[in-house]
Parts: sequence; C-alpha cells; structure tokens
Amino acid sequence: MSNYSEIFNPQSIAVVGASNNPNSSGYRFTICQMDYGYQGRIYPVNPRYAEVLRMPCYACIKDIPDTVDYVISAVSAPLVPAMLEECGQKKVKVVHLFTGRFSETGRPEAANLEREILAIAKRHGIRIIGPNCMGLYKPRLGISFSDAMPHETTGTLGLISQSGQAAEEIVRTASLMGLNFSNAISYGNALDLNECDYVQYLSEDPDTEMILMYLEGLREGRRFFDVLKKTTAHKPVIILKGGRGESGTRAVASHTASMAGSTLMLESILAQAGAVFADNMEEFIDIAVTFHYAPPIKGIRVGVSGGAGGTSVLAADQCEAAGLDVIPIPNDLRQELKRRGVSVWDWIGNPVDYSIRENEDLSYADMVEILAKNQNFDLIMVVFGEPHHEHQKNTNADDYLRQYSMENCKPKPALAIVPERSTGLDHYDDWNWKIIYELRSKLLSAGIPYYPTVKRAGVAAKKTADYWRYRNLPS
Amino acid sequence: MSNYSEIFNPQSIAVVGASNNPNSSGYRFTICQMDYGYQGRIYPVNPRYAEVLRMPCYACIKDIPDTVDYVISAVSAPLVPAMLEECGQKKVKVVHLFTGRFSETGRPEAANLEREILAIAKRHGIRIIGPNCMGLYKPRLGISFSDAMPHETTGTLGLISQSGQAAEEIVRTASLMGLNFSNAISYGNALDLNECDYVQYLSEDPDTEMILMYLEGLREGRRFFDVLKKTTAHKPVIILKGGRGESGTRAVASHTASMAGSTLMLESILAQAGAVFADNMEEFIDIAVTFHYAPPIKGIRVGVSGGAGGTSVLAADQCEAAGLDVIPIPNDLRQELKRRGVSVWDWIGNPVDYSIRENEDLSYADMVEILAKNQNFDLIMVVFGEPHHEHQKNTNADDYLRQYSMENCKPKPALAIVPERSTGLDHYDDWNWKIIYELRSKLLSAGIPYYPTVKRAGVAAKKTADYWRYRNLPS
Repeated sequence: MSNYSEIFNPQSIAVVGASNNPNSSGYRFTICQMDYGYQGRIYPVNPRYAEVLRMPCYACIKDIPDTVDYVISAVSAPLVPAMLEECGQKKVKVVHLFTGRFSETGRPEAANLEREILAIAKRHGIRIIGPNCMGLYKPRLGISFSDAMPHETTGTLGLISQSGQAAEEIVRTASLMGLNFSNAISYGNALDLNECDYVQYLSEDPDTEMILMYLEGLREGRRFFDVLKKTTAHKPVIILKGGRGESGTRAVASHTASMAGSTLMLESILAQAGAVFADNMEEFIDIAVTFHYAPPIKGIRVGVSGGAGGTSVLAADQCEAAGLDVIPIPNDLRQELKRRGVSVWDWIGNPVDYSIRENEDLSYADMVEILAKNQNFDLIMVVFGEPHHEHQKNTNADDYLRQYSMENCKPKPALAIVPERSTGLDHYDDWNWKIIYELRSKLLSAGIPYYPTVKRAGVAAKKTADYWRYRNLPS
Repeated sequence: MSNYSEIFNPQSIAVVGASNNPNSSGYRFTICQMDYGYQGRIYPVNPRYAEVLRMPCYACIKDIPDTVDYVISAVSAPLVPAMLEECGQKKVKVVHLFTGRFSETGRPEAANLEREILAIAKRHGIRIIGPNCMGLYKPRLGISFSDAMPHETTGTLGLISQSGQAAEEIVRTASLMGLNFSNAISYGNALDLNECDYVQYLSEDPDTEMILMYLEGLREGRRFFDVLKKTTAHKPVIILKGGRGESGTRAVASHTASMAGSTLMLESILAQAGAVFADNMEEFIDIAVTFHYAPPIKGIRVGVSGGAGGTSVLAADQCEAAGLDVIPIPNDLRQELKRRGVSVWDWIGNPVDYSIRENEDLSYADMVEILAKNQNFDLIMVVFGEPHHEHQKNTNADDYLRQYSMENCKPKPALAIVPERSTGLDHYDDWNWKIIYELRSKLLSAGIPYYPTVKRAGVAAKKTADYWRYRNLPS
C-alpha cells in the first residue's frame, strides 16, 4: 500500500491492551484519543475488561462490530504475533506497535521475534509503525500519544522522529514559539514503514509545509536520498541526527537498534539532496522558526544593529563563526549617514556600536531602516538588550519594539536577538523578564523570529540561506 | 607604582564633570557612588555648579580641601590634558578616564591627544584606567559604574573587561547564578594600566578566587604570558576573546583601538599559561559557574543519567563533541545491577536510558548513586526533564531533587541539566516553569551547578577539567 493518506487518516482506532489502570500505557493511549477529541471511533480491546473508560471493551479485535483501520498495540512483545494474525483476519490496515523490547535489547531471541512479526504483517498486507515507539500525533483528527502535546493546534510542520521522547520535546518546544504541527510520527525501530515512507507521506501532505526529522539510522539509504531530493525541491527538510559519535552510536543501538553508521559521510551525502542538518535540539528548533517566520534568506551578508561595545564585537565574531558575512559599512550607506549629519559617519561600523553614538541625531530605528533599505545586506539582525536600568522600569514591550522599528525591515529578513537567562525563583518576578516575555510575544505576532543569542540566530540564518540557495540551483 | 592595592582601594573619589543633569554621565558616576554606599569621600568637580546632588561642588580639583586618591573623568577629550596637570599638582594616584573619543575613533588627531595624555600622566606618576571605559565596580567599598550592578553582594570573582557593556552583562548574568564579584574593572583602551596590571592585582587580591577577562587585544604580550602563568598556578583565569574574525577585528579597532591579532595563535599560546578560553558569553559564565560550584573535575569520564530515548542519545553526542568520554557501563557496575535484580542489567547503557526501565526495581536515585560511587566515572550529569504531564502538576522542586538524589554524589562532581525556553507572555505563568525556577534555586543552595543543555554542561566540564589537569602538571 502506498496510499499513505489512508494509513495516516484512520476512521477507527482499536487500542489492544487498553486498561483502566491509570499507570498503564493501554490506559494512556485510550484516554489520550478521548481527551484530544479523536473524530473517529475508538475501540478498547482487552479480555480482562468489559468496559474501559466507560466504553465497551472487546475481548479481541475480531469481536469489534466495525471495520478497524488502525490498531495501537500496548501488549507485551510475546503477544504480538497472535494479535497480528487477528488484525490480518480483521483487515486492519496499520498496526502501531508501542510494544517494545525487540531488537533494541540486543538479545537474539528478541530480534528473532521482530523478524517473525514482520513476516506475519507482510503476509497480511498490514503496515507497521514501530515497534518501540509512540506512534501518531495529529491534532486535526484528535490523535495524540501524550497528554503533554498541544491540543487543537493544527499547524504546518510535520515531524518524523525515531524517539517518542524527542518528539514530545520537539513539539512542545516548537509550540512555545508558535509553531504547530500537522503530524508528528514517532516510529522507533522502523521495522516496516521507515524514514522513506514517512517523508514521502509528509512530502505529499498538503497540510505540511516543512518537515523535521529526528533520525537515528537509515533503513533504505538510497531510496531515502531520492525521496529527500524530491521533497526538498518544494519543502525544507531539517534533520537532527542522533548517534554521531562512538557513545551515541552505542546509545542508538540500544534505543532503536539502528545502525548509526558514519554520520559525517551521511550528512555530506544527504546535504546534496538538500537536507538541512542541525547540530543539536536548540538549533533544530531555531532553523524551523527561521523557515516559518522569516522570508527566504537569499544571501549571507548581514547587518547587525542594536548592540554596543563588547556586545557588538562578540556579535561580529559569532556571525562570522556561523558562516555569515559581516560586511563593512558600504560606502553609499556611509555617505547617507554623512548627508544626515551624523558626526560619527566615518567611524561607525557593522555591527553598529551604539555606544559611540551618544547625543547623536541617529535613532536605533533610523539605523535599522537604513541598513534594511541598503541592497548590500541580505538580512538584518537586531540585538535587544535586557532592560536593566532603573529608568527602564516604566518602559514596555511596545516602546522597545518601536525603538528598533523592525517591522519596517520587510520584505528584507530581520531576526531579533532577545536575551534569556536560567534564573532561580528569586528572579521569577523581576520586571525585566516580564518586559522580555512580552517583547517576544509581540515579535512573533509581528512575524519576526527571535533567538536568545547572536550565535544561534547566525547559525539558523546561515543554514536556511544554504537551503534557499540550494533550491534556486538549476537541477 | 606597583602597589595595586592602593590604586584599587581609594579613600576619596573626585568626579570631574559631575552634574545635576540626570542624562549626563557626570551625574551618573556621582549618584552611583552615593547609591552604592561608597565608604570613602566623594567630591564633585564642575565650575558650573555650587552643589551637585546636594554635595558641595568644586570648580577644580585643586580646590578640594582634602587628598584625592582617585579621579573619575567625565569631561570631554580636549579638556583632559589640563585636568591631568591639575591632578598632578594634587598628587592624585589614579585617574579613570571614562572620557572616550580617542584612538578608537580611527582619527589621527584623537590618537595624538591620547599620546599626549599618557605623557602627562607619566610625568606626574599618575596611573590611568582607560580611556574609554566604565572603570571600577567594587561592592565591598560601594564603588559602581552602573545602577544595573548588584548592590552589597561582595563575592569572590574578579572581572577585567575591555568593554563596559560586556562587564555589565557578565556581572548581571553571573549574579543570577549566585556568583558575585570582588572587583569588576572595565578598562577600555588600556593606555597605561593594562591587562597585565589588572591580572596582577586580582592575582594578589585575597578577596578574589577566580578571574574572568573579556579581552580585545594585548598591550604587553610577553609580560601577560608570565603574569598569567603565575596566576593560573593558584587561581583559574577564564578569557572571552572579542575580535576573533575579520569583522570582529574591525569592531575591536573601532571599540577600544586594540589590535586583535591572530586569535588562534594567541589562544594556543595563552592556553600554555593555563588560561581557559570561552567561545562565547554563555560558555564564559558556565565555566565560572562550574569552577565556583563543582569540586575540581579531575577527569573526563562522564556518567549521564536522567534522560530517556532520543534525549539520552543526544546527550551522548553532545558530551562526546565537548570532548568528554562517555564510557560504556563498566563491568563491575553491570554486575551490581544484576545482583540487585535489575532485569535490564545487560541492556542498560551510559547514558542511562530510563525509558527501558519501566516497572523495574531501579530508581533514578539508585542509579545516580551507583554511578557516583563507581570509580570509573570522574563526573556525573543528571538530566532533568521539563515537568509537563498533567500528573506532575502537584509535584514540586523538592520531589524532583529527591528523585535524583544528587546531593549524594558528593564528593564526586555532579552537574544538573535543567531546561530553559525562550517563551512569550502566554507561558509566563505556566506551572512547569515555576517548578523549574524553584528547582534551580534549590540546586544552587545545595551547591550543585546547573546548565540549560548537556552541550553547555559538557563544554564547561571539559574546560574546567583541562584546567585542573594543567594545575596538577609538574611545573
């Protein structure tokens, strides 16, 4: 079956191993679909119960008086073969095996059982998600695998993750930045449906504008390259690769039994298919934020404004280390400053150091607009300081925003740098942070992405710019 | 004069250019010493006022009916030579030139004026801090240069910074982590007193246990190497170098007129003198946090606990990328797990993946203690997740702390990873974050350092471990 849309849009779901015990996964998978308002029909299956969560519970899948599109298996590994046989008789299309303890244990008998399961599924034409995974989160249909996922917030990001834990963290973190998901698929060991199928599905899915992947290993490398190449021609694909060194490779083997292989090699090959690789979780989200909020960044020449003194120097260093080009102030811009009567017209640089500008007739907003209008810059960064002087107590986020006039940068991409700190309880109610929180909300409302450091903004800008350059290449 | 203690412990301060205009720097330098409770005598100097901030104001330095140890100059550059001549007659020991617009402007006449000033100072035996800098912050004496610095919180960190802006950010950020300062010196262009003098002073200062430097360029490279080497033999010196690439070097020239030089070369030479280099501001603070809170980290073999699934895989990758050694579970530890009846004794790895442990008789606390007690590990990392499931709403930070039993790791260094997110106003009051804030406070109270990511913890651990290894080298 290559009709992925059918696989991922089930009309009815059976939870095998459903339970009334709140500490069991069978309970959690059942209540999750109810809580998220699943729009299809839910059928708990467990011979030990007549009812689960006040719904009729069936002793076995065959007893369900309806077609069953999708089965979630929360039973233990040895029970899976018999359950799959039943699914075959019932013409189930997809089985999501939350069930784990297969090849990832490193134990030969568990790996044998996994192979047996695949053979049964193939015989019946059943597609398998997993094993050893959390399955599907699809807010539009009300499908979820964790009560920590956002409710009723269908978005345009599609996530494919070999780890359920990582999927949860990615979806939650992205949602704090206003990024929501069309689908998130946790797929574990990729015994049957694998990375190629999931990317293919999200590539075709009209609700998905960008694909995020947490990947531990590839089941079909060559096919993946081809699928990826076709996909990146019209949608960005951002990959966070787990298992990059020796210890990570060991961890991947015991997590999803994946062969991590040579990551450097893998990344360089897949980059040729247009994939964007993130080094870590923060970068992964930053890149998605940039694709979502910023217009395409078509070059790497950056104008940096808003900082002062050492902050400006460090901003230059971090942008350059990220691969951006912090060009000197272009001559036409310098002449414009001179025409405007700015006394430091010959001294001011890029990054703009505002500490030299005291008592000058050049506002932050003016400078940001001048940089944005100048055709020598491909993107603008505005560094917001943390308000911390007493006299700033009465300012608010609107004052801050107006001060820098970032909205006027459009259509040029403009990125905001807004500080963040790991503080303890003593600082929870500090007025500074309240202004910062409000500023962040207002930036996103204005469609302006923000980052906690210049370094993170720089890396995200460079990597998205690389993607847009790739897309403009003649194929 | 090499009696640094006298230079940095003035009994009386004159502010030249003092003013009643709240927008002037002369006003800010005067009111700052009052607000921070300066324990010596303050003398405003300005011929235009009879009183400044209700204190008698003197027309010139000579008129002050007292000895003057320390002068803060807030007058404009052309007035400095005459002022210095007066200081000479008054036997002033030190002049802090907040006054800027010298060689950093790139203008030949400004650079000439700077040279003239140095000659006058030398003639009179006056030492100069600056020009183009914020000067001294010393909470024990009540000296400060900004109302954003913490009040009355003398600590054990000494900061030397070529940038006042950076000094403010460093002191504020560190203070959020409970790190306070004995001295912070913003020294700008380093015309007279330079990096060598400041390090020498803090090296001798009994109140200072660790030295932080934001450095743009060196005035005396060879001497600096020697001073540094002597200092690092008994105190850590952490350096954040500004002006590392082409654009940063340009920015440094227009900021403090420093010659950034080849940073790679510089860093490799100074590392031989035991300096610890930070790549960016966050890392800089992380390293200080680690030196302050963690016992000396004597090796790089790390045991990682607390994460699950993909989080564990990524933790392995990030530790390894930082240069730590994520060793496999040692055999004696595996045998201990077997003896305790842990069914996954043969499967569990390092990082410990807690997702495979469900329903097992092995608590987080047990595992952390087992790792800490095992002699194969030099340090332990504990990854705290963000509480996000509904049933965690009623937990609190104490529950969290107890769950991992980190206090029991002592005397082995244990680092906590506590998440942080850049959220907007909608999430300001989320219960999850309140628990996290409280957890952070409790960790610091227990003397346990925390970091927002494994990557940041890993880099800080590796760099401090390198320092301790250096210190143990036979000299």
